[in-house]
Amino acid sequence: MSDWQKLNVAERRRQSPRVAVSTVAFALRPPAHARVHAKDEEQGLWLPLVRRVRAPFKDAWALPGGPTAWNQTLTQTAHATLVAATRIEPSYLEQLYSFGSVERSADAERLVTIAYWAQYSARDAAGATAAAGEDTNVAWFRADALPDLAFDHGEIIATALTRLRSRTAYAAVAHRFLDPEFTLAQLREVHEIILGHPLDPANFRRQMLASKTLEETGHSLAGVKHRPAKTYRYRPEED
Amino acid sequence: MSDWQKLNVAERRRQSPRVAVSTVAFALRPPAHARVHAKDEEQGLWLPLVRRVRAPFKDAWALPGGPTAWNQTLTQTAHATLVAATRIEPSYLEQLYSFGSVERSADAERLVTIAYWAQYSARDAAGATAAAGEDTNVAWFRADALPDLAFDHGEIIATALTRLRSRTAYAAVAHRFLDPEFTLAQLREVHEIILGHPLDPANFRRQMLASKTLEETGHSLAGVKHRPAKTYRYRPEED
Repeated sequence: MSDWQKLNVAERRRQSPRVAVSTVAFALRPPAHARVHAKDEEQGLWLPLVRRVRAPFKDAWALPGGPTAWNQTLTQTAHATLVAATRIEPSYLEQLYSFGSVERSADAERLVTIAYWAQYSARDAAGATAAAGEDTNVAWFRADALPDLAFDHGEIIATALTRLRSRTAYAAVAHRFLDPEFTLAQLREVHEIILGHPLDPANFRRQMLASKTLEETGHSLAGVKHRPAKTYRYRPEED
Repeated sequence: MSDWQKLNVAERRRQSPRVAVSTVAFALRPPAHARVHAKDEEQGLWLPLVRRVRAPFKDAWALPGGPTAWNQTLTQTAHATLVAATRIEPSYLEQLYSFGSVERSADAERLVTIAYWAQYSARDAAGATAAAGEDTNVAWFRADALPDLAFDHGEIIATALTRLRSRTAYAAVAHRFLDPEFTLAQLREVHEIILGHPLDPANFRRQMLASKTLEETGHSLAGVKHRPAKTYRYRPEED
């Protein structure tokens, strides 16, 4: 029984809420060596979850994260707990939103969660070492086939997906999933995965080239079915 | 001496941080009846502050806010503490960012602040009753002439100003400061106040009319120096 559980309701109400940091970290494929809870490892939106080993929600899956550490900023805690779970450095990490609904936790302890979202690039995921699969309580799931989640982590993931989709207009978001050089077909595939629906190739091509956020690398990539396709790199603009 | 202050450092490190909600609430003028700490009441970016009556930072000015309440969501706490301080309902309230730097507070108590930002319209401010000036510890300041602030509330205000400026591209932000019907000159003045620099009237007019977020009301407003100017209303689009 935790100290919290020994308190009666009147005492609990006087306690400060617990504060935790949780991170929704997206990749287009599960990293090399990672444990995977899915039928395949096809491209899609994937994210890592951690199985809880103690109450509340013991044995349920939860987002990587943990309590705010005394000597770390919120962002440092998000980064440290994500890397501790996945053993891979993300390409991107940003604060998402703070969740503090009344009675979030099963034992009625008030919990405020500062949520972050992160992105892993293809290179981050491909470069993962065997350490990525060592922890048997960490696994990667498809965002469209999630297990039952602890706390309100389902709501946090839904908010992160909305943010990801609304930001796809910023080229940076799609680009961060890719290698530094990519074809327009690869870029379109990323957009289709994020948005969840197919895009017209000719329209997509026209819009992307008009946006001035891409520049040709001067290289081509031999396609399996098609003639070689020009590759592009992202040219950062103000966000 | 607070319970916190009786703890030694090792004990403090095991405590959960305190969680507070603070709101940066912008208006173009101080509300009717409000106490004002400035030489004039010219248009500009104004915000309410509350003088602290206890340590830490006793007598310093701070953002309206308070501890998270057991039975309220974070947004409910932000709304309730803002209205308790100003006695005026804001037109808009949105979560801004969570701040949790290490050792934020003077007595080394770890504090996590969930910051919100709000907007008051001209109508909100003009409709304030005498209650707006009753609390001698609440006053309105110009954002460009702030006093010394408690905690890291200066950093929170700077973040809110950045958010406000980056969102000016969304017509909704400028519009929320105005009455439902406004002239293009009034709208330009709001943009100039938010951005902090003058805009070319002809360019501004062309951009606003091209953005399709305005529609003519069919009315005109007699100008003091100029011929009557058409009034417009905001036509909401997806944000």
